[in-house]
Amino acid sequence: MENLKLTSREENYSEWYNQLVLRAELADYAPVRGCMVVRPYGWALWENIQAALDKRFKETGHVNAAFPMLIPESYMTKEAEHVEGFAPELAVVTHAGGSKLEEPLVLRPTSETIIGTMYAKWIQSYRDLPVLMNQWANVVRWEMRTRLFLRTTEFYWQEGHTAHATYEEAEAETLQMLGVYTDFCHNEAAMPVLPGRKSEREKFAGALATYSIEAMMGDTKALQAGTSHFLGQNFAKAFDIKFLDQNNELQYCWTTSWGVTTRLIGAMVMIHGDDQGLVLPPRLAPIQVVIVPIFRKDSEKEAVLEMVAKVQAGLKEQGIRVHVDDREGLTPGFKYNDWEMKGVPLRIEIGPKDVEKNSLALARRDIPGRDGKSFVPYDGFQKTVADMLVTIQDNMLAKAIAFRDAHIFEVDNYEDFKDVVENKGWAKVWWYEDGENEDKIREETKCKLLNFAETEGEGICFYSGRKTNTQVYFAKTY
Amino acid sequence: MENLKLTSREENYSEWYNQLVLRAELADYAPVRGCMVVRPYGWALWENIQAALDKRFKETGHVNAAFPMLIPESYMTKEAEHVEGFAPELAVVTHAGGSKLEEPLVLRPTSETIIGTMYAKWIQSYRDLPVLMNQWANVVRWEMRTRLFLRTTEFYWQEGHTAHATYEEAEAETLQMLGVYTDFCHNEAAMPVLPGRKSEREKFAGALATYSIEAMMGDTKALQAGTSHFLGQNFAKAFDIKFLDQNNELQYCWTTSWGVTTRLIGAMVMIHGDDQGLVLPPRLAPIQVVIVPIFRKDSEKEAVLEMVAKVQAGLKEQGIRVHVDDREGLTPGFKYNDWEMKGVPLRIEIGPKDVEKNSLALARRDIPGRDGKSFVPYDGFQKTVADMLVTIQDNMLAKAIAFRDAHIFEVDNYEDFKDVVENKGWAKVWWYEDGENEDKIREETKCKLLNFAETEGEGICFYSGRKTNTQVYFAKTY
Repeated sequence: MENLKLTSREENYSEWYNQLVLRAELADYAPVRGCMVVRPYGWALWENIQAALDKRFKETGHVNAAFPMLIPESYMTKEAEHVEGFAPELAVVTHAGGSKLEEPLVLRPTSETIIGTMYAKWIQSYRDLPVLMNQWANVVRWEMRTRLFLRTTEFYWQEGHTAHATYEEAEAETLQMLGVYTDFCHNEAAMPVLPGRKSEREKFAGALATYSIEAMMGDTKALQAGTSHFLGQNFAKAFDIKFLDQNNELQYCWTTSWGVTTRLIGAMVMIHGDDQGLVLPPRLAPIQVVIVPIFRKDSEKEAVLEMVAKVQAGLKEQGIRVHVDDREGLTPGFKYNDWEMKGVPLRIEIGPKDVEKNSLALARRDIPGRDGKSFVPYDGFQKTVADMLVTIQDNMLAKAIAFRDAHIFEVDNYEDFKDVVENKGWAKVWWYEDGENEDKIREETKCKLLNFAETEGEGICFYSGRKTNTQVYFAKTY
Repeated sequence: MENLKLTSREENYSEWYNQLVLRAELADYAPVRGCMVVRPYGWALWENIQAALDKRFKETGHVNAAFPMLIPESYMTKEAEHVEGFAPELAVVTHAGGSKLEEPLVLRPTSETIIGTMYAKWIQSYRDLPVLMNQWANVVRWEMRTRLFLRTTEFYWQEGHTAHATYEEAEAETLQMLGVYTDFCHNEAAMPVLPGRKSEREKFAGALATYSIEAMMGDTKALQAGTSHFLGQNFAKAFDIKFLDQNNELQYCWTTSWGVTTRLIGAMVMIHGDDQGLVLPPRLAPIQVVIVPIFRKDSEKEAVLEMVAKVQAGLKEQGIRVHVDDREGLTPGFKYNDWEMKGVPLRIEIGPKDVEKNSLALARRDIPGRDGKSFVPYDGFQKTVADMLVTIQDNMLAKAIAFRDAHIFEVDNYEDFKDVVENKGWAKVWWYEDGENEDKIREETKCKLLNFAETEGEGICFYSGRKTNTQVYFAKTY
């Protein structure tokens, strides 16, 4: 058996991505247009992402619940901007139980409307606030052009929905969750992101303000990896979410919503992957260490497998997710390629010579070839391996930060801007917010305003020439 | 503030159930007919159920995946019995993205058809077998009469789907999962169930054989709490799931499917609940121990809260899920009733006298009133509490078994049978399988054949008078 090679990133980045997702068995195409099947390896990765996020949500006081997937069509129209944003993407149930429904039901594209309706019922007094809920759910948006993980008709996500007594508290919540996402991306996914406010043009349909985290992919295009919305009182007014305040006066709540999706998996593929396949950060990898036993003769087999078993048990004891590839009839070389395709962070090879020398051969996934190989003593292997996983995680983040920073360019005129976004990466520019100018740039360069950078001082807007105190990122996007 | 009393079980069991589910904040009615909102307390319970089951699935070699919710309508018709069983319950998406779809899509009522389609693509050789997958998902069945948790239009479940090379292996898998469900119910939910084969009349649409676990509710009606289906080669033939065997010959796979749903929550309510509210088994309870601090004067407050904090920290350290009810403006009595409604297994009251005596007052939820109260020394409280949670869990199971066994009656004639199923509980009878007789009994008595009992020996069928070696349970059902 031979391993199939991927199309290289240089040859065709998009084709490389599609092949990789299929070959690493992360996902497959479903027979329904635009839908995906998340295969066990991909779902195990998603479960690890869920666990790491859910822990952070619970630590910040949130609880999980489950709201219905079916929403009366009329709910979608209650918030004017919201319906305008989502109407073109809705899938509609018109028949059920053999009859036509009196009112059609839409499959949730997001749940502000149905959750808002329940909040209006549950919230009476300031004592009931804040309400801090999240749900892990599937949602449906009828997209025209779809790609596995990046944009699918049905996708998986979490959506947090909170209600507060004051503007300040709701805004603080919005920013807190943006911080949680940033922290998760950096420390779990080794994915450096830039958090910031989206422009008025790009904000969520119905929000006062939307904040996003933006990540740079391996081809330097940008991917919006998560959003946190400050909804003001828009949804509270549309759905009548009111409370009696301490002075016994009725007030509208201030609400937020925030979400990340299975898109994160696509982002991890494109940030860390190489021409050999996936490269997964140890903290999220379904398999952190794979052990490949090597022997030619039966006389070698017993001693090798004995050592393999001891290493496996020792790593398990440390809570390390370890897998032994004892498939028969496959060469070690085939197995190496196979696990490299699947992005397992660390491979341990154990053969007769390793038994003899009482040592292990380690191969890091993040550093291909000879440079990533080392021989370490068997004694103390638990600590050696645990430490190396930390090193790999840190190196992956450092590498991704270096790549990103090398591909962001500050420019002060439109010519340089066009050169950067067309050929080099992201443009960071002084920007005086103006939706019409944003539209023009988008039309002329096919690139989008990602979000507002953390900025000090003042500058001149590269496009309008106006004085401004804000900087933004522009780039081509997924 | 005063606690509202529940309608008692004796007065109106059905009303008691509905009130309890709402007041304990397990769930609420959604604005879409027949749908529910699972509130945070109910969802936390479901998460604990999921964790306990998922662990068992993984220990038996299964992996999780995610298949699309939308299924082309034509798929449903590929297995003749399957479509007949599910057609009346389907919800259908006819429009999406602003246009009419060429082929309508149904919301999955179960996923044999879509998963079968993918298995046909993935499985080539005997080396690919067995395939052992599970998914945690929402499904939709358009039910006419709905009740929170027991029967809702959208519900949450897990569905396992496996493919095997042989009849024997698939049948063994079917029975293994029936065993996993039984073990879960007994050891986690303190819910005694009777596992056995369903009759031909009651089996899953498209299965060779269906096995179920049946539980007795507090009103002695039966509830089917889970099913495991041996699908034979029916779905493999309908969806072309084939493999090359070791002799290089093409064979159809043998498949199974098995599932449990959020119905389990309704079952736990009805098996363990009493007129004061929910009673949750410690192993699944979102909150295992609630601590209520008691003080009247500020001078008492500090010492009481200090002890409360120590007990809370000590229990947390043991991995016990503990909550301190420090709400202000509510009497201890109100709080006791409130946590009894929510079924928290153990309450610890700490007041000035307890501080003085260095002791704790414990109140068990499973034994109401004085008999469930005890005073224990502060020293060693961690072990005392941990042990008591085990005792409560064991007692709840024993009580439920005793109740069940006291309400199953062996009868040998139709008159006694009718008296039992009408007034007393379940009938256990010798039964010669005959679908028409089963229909007649169902029509005449409104009760169903639950499943086949474990039986030795022979007897005379109570209805047909024929000799038989099988016994079955009949009862009114949810």
